[in-house]
Amino acid sequence: MYRVDLNSDLGESFGRYTLGSDDQIIPLITSANVACGFHASDPVVMKKTIEMAREAGIHVGAHPGYPDLMGFGRRNMTISPAEAKAYTLYQIGALDAFCKAAGLEMQHVKPHGAFYNMAAKDYKLAHGICEAIAEYNPKLILMALSGSEMIRAAEDCGLRAASEVFADRAYEEDGTLVNRAKEGAMITDEDEAIARVVRMIKEKKVTAITGKDIPLKADSICVHGDGAKALAFVAKIRETLTKEGIEICPLAQML
Amino acid sequence: MYRVDLNSDLGESFGRYTLGSDDQIIPLITSANVACGFHASDPVVMKKTIEMAREAGIHVGAHPGYPDLMGFGRRNMTISPAEAKAYTLYQIGALDAFCKAAGLEMQHVKPHGAFYNMAAKDYKLAHGICEAIAEYNPKLILMALSGSEMIRAAEDCGLRAASEVFADRAYEEDGTLVNRAKEGAMITDEDEAIARVVRMIKEKKVTAITGKDIPLKADSICVHGDGAKALAFVAKIRETLTKEGIEICPLAQML
Amino acid sequence: MYRVDLNSDLGESFGRYTLGSDDQIIPLITSANVACGFHASDPVVMKKTIEMAREAGIHVGAHPGYPDLMGFGRRNMTISPAEAKAYTLYQIGALDAFCKAAGLEMQHVKPHGAFYNMAAKDYKLAHGICEAIAEYNPKLILMALSGSEMIRAAEDCGLRAASEVFADRAYEEDGTLVNRAKEGAMITDEDEAIARVVRMIKEKKVTAITGKDIPLKADSICVHGDGAKALAFVAKIRETLTKEGIEICPLAQML
Amino acid sequence: MYRVDLNSDLGESFGRYTLGSDDQIIPLITSANVACGFHASDPVVMKKTIEMAREAGIHVGAHPGYPDLMGFGRRNMTISPAEAKAYTLYQIGALDAFCKAAGLEMQHVKPHGAFYNMAAKDYKLAHGICEAIAEYNPKLILMALSGSEMIRAAEDCGLRAASEVFADRAYEEDGTLVNRAKEGAMITDEDEAIARVVRMIKEKKVTAITGKDIPLKADSICVHGDGAKALAFVAKIRETLTKEGIEICPLAQML
Repeated sequence: MYRVDLNSDLGESFGRYTLGSDDQIIPLITSANVACGFHASDPVVMKKTIEMAREAGIHVGAHPGYPDLMGFGRRNMTISPAEAKAYTLYQIGALDAFCKAAGLEMQHVKPHGAFYNMAAKDYKLAHGICEAIAEYNPKLILMALSGSEMIRAAEDCGLRAASEVFADRAYEEDGTLVNRAKEGAMITDEDEAIARVVRMIKEKKVTAITGKDIPLKADSICVHGDGAKALAFVAKIRETLTKEGIEICPLAQML
Repeated sequence: MYRVDLNSDLGESFGRYTLGSDDQIIPLITSANVACGFHASDPVVMKKTIEMAREAGIHVGAHPGYPDLMGFGRRNMTISPAEAKAYTLYQIGALDAFCKAAGLEMQHVKPHGAFYNMAAKDYKLAHGICEAIAEYNPKLILMALSGSEMIRAAEDCGLRAASEVFADRAYEEDGTLVNRAKEGAMITDEDEAIARVVRMIKEKKVTAITGKDIPLKADSICVHGDGAKALAFVAKIRETLTKEGIEICPLAQML
Repeated sequence: MYRVDLNSDLGESFGRYTLGSDDQIIPLITSANVACGFHASDPVVMKKTIEMAREAGIHVGAHPGYPDLMGFGRRNMTISPAEAKAYTLYQIGALDAFCKAAGLEMQHVKPHGAFYNMAAKDYKLAHGICEAIAEYNPKLILMALSGSEMIRAAEDCGLRAASEVFADRAYEEDGTLVNRAKEGAMITDEDEAIARVVRMIKEKKVTAITGKDIPLKADSICVHGDGAKALAFVAKIRETLTKEGIEICPLAQML
Repeated sequence: MYRVDLNSDLGESFGRYTLGSDDQIIPLITSANVACGFHASDPVVMKKTIEMAREAGIHVGAHPGYPDLMGFGRRNMTISPAEAKAYTLYQIGALDAFCKAAGLEMQHVKPHGAFYNMAAKDYKLAHGICEAIAEYNPKLILMALSGSEMIRAAEDCGLRAASEVFADRAYEEDGTLVNRAKEGAMITDEDEAIARVVRMIKEKKVTAITGKDIPLKADSICVHGDGAKALAFVAKIRETLTKEGIEICPLAQML
């Protein structure tokens, strides 16, 4: 039987600023990546987000990012593996405090934005992140790009790794995501995007932008909750997965 | 037999900025209050500080402060009890991540600066802080000003409370510290300061600035490590306490 | 002939976070208070906001706030007059850089949120702010609560002061705003609010929450652009003012 | 006749944190690069620094950096030219407010740390910075690495450019600085360093790490004031320059 997790970034509001439609995406996903105050969020938002997740019965993970609120953690920053390790420990611990207070067990860790992308290609950076997770709690699952250096580092650190795929993004032949600035980077046809996801799960394959089939692993699909169109797309993915006999369940029940 | 803890604020460096002489004060104290990144410190400094404390075998606690790096957490800020609770949870959790990674158990929580002073007088604010501690880990000890609203809130939340006294500060009749701006606020004579501390421990009393004796409790003495003079004063306190038959030991062994 | 300025806070977005409907409120006002990066905004937002204001031909002023992005500058902070002066200089200068690059002359300075409210009651704090403005550019107009310590400090520093009134807020007998937590603090009836404004302008009077008439001065009315209802209210104010023969014009043309 | 400027980074303290020995380096230099609150400094420090510079009669420039206080602006960040332009405008304007209040005219702008290094190699980034300077005040001088993209961009924007050289750093054949991590990156022999500087000024040449002579231009020498040894080295440079008949004078008098 096939199974897959649906994950989304949550709790990205900050102070007076509201971002996303957390209450609307929550019923559609099984795992939430909760921002930890570096690239987004603040303690009050984190507390509220964890409490919403507990109410809804979804699983939560930490979503550590670069210390760049102004850039939403999307800008590359050159930090050392030691800094990556310390930043990850700090953010995991901060989020876990709200989980503990809410009686919730943290399921996973997924680095955010540029932190995710840079670590996907840089083994040393990825290793710093995975060391932090392993030293904090070796039961935590690392969620990262399928086939990335992050997955390799997680295994080297004795962590369980969940491979993430993207429904709306094109892939290079080496399994990395096509840069957004490049023509064809986004899969804009919804039916095509969903068909690709089903194939990723069932055949463990996707057609790269070059036309060649490449292997990948789809433990979790990244979805978005910003706007009515995005939410409708997630609902459509869910519907198709169910029709295809693919069970939607949190990582903790799969790995 | 008399016992007392000696505590000091540690890990207040930030990025390129160094503050304090942590390596020199560590051998002289039994409990360290470690900054958590709001009023001072950053994840790299926190990691290093916790590792130094573990090496030295001293006990550590979280030292949460206001989100005011520019003011070092020393400026009054009007935050709600709910914000105080969330800020405390965040900072305790963040520091605890480094404790866990280092195999160290966190002993206590002591709010910093203006957060400490405002909560000493404001029961609701104090209660927000204590709720955070109790929900995170009810074994943690709250360290706060003897006789303050913090101590009362800790007891109401089922937490153990450690009463802190200051060797170099004068007291008002109501047990609060004399404002630094006021004449006579600082006890500048070292021998007098030490004699006062011994009396606080043995007789549970101190002479207020008005001349009247007031009751207090001295579980822990706050000492400073900034500069040669401060360090020599701590050494002198230690020596006198020992001569007076007062055992210096961490809170965890007393309460 | 009667004249009045309509002012609104603009440019409060930050990084990935959008706040307000600047493009919709701009056509309805004569003066914009532009956030300067402390309580809200960032350099990219400031640049865009100044360019929008120039396109629309409205006047702009700096809207300096407390260094508290997490609290949107709405939380009281105890800072010294010297800090208030330095924070004001920094923020005025930062915003003025975008004005200069856009070929726009800055018209006024209006402190934000808790900075505005604390300085309204604290002459020393107000004086620090006004010293900053006078030393930076004595042609700038200070905009502040009618009858406040800010107005007094501005005059003492040789600055022109514009008295601001609020359409939707009740007043105490001493001319301060009724605390929002208090019953009756908000004037919820739109017609009543507008009638009050017209009387403030023509008779220089308003009925305080106690029922007693008090004097005030209405150089500028503070309006809001968040949401369709707020925008419709501003349009209604404009319409009534015009019917009443009150000219709507920027401060620079009045004082 | 030969002339050269001596510049140093100043005003890098922040809140409770002190950095550098500004009072000791000031008498030895002709131009100060003053931090603007992004990678270091705060408004109170900036005000004090500008006042110290005015007292000493040295010239000042803005030292804008990346928004990375935790990394002291030394970590590469991928920002767009538009962001570089906005960040530069903001920081120049903020510092200029203190110059205006002090009756001082700003002389130059020198980007800091990773901002300086990335812009030295990236023409588009450099152009964003130079556009900001030219739009703010075209009389300002850009100070940047001799032979860099920054110098080229400044000329394209109609700005005067001052070429900076480093006494204690080795050069690659293309005129860039040898990465600090590489063997031989630092010129540790003081006499050699000074002899190199004299040759840079008189012959407009330096021997690259490969042994080949390369051309450069030495309008200003970067010196440091952190510690007794650094200060003594600056004094020695001054002495030698004077003996060699090289006049030490601020950029504004040279270009």
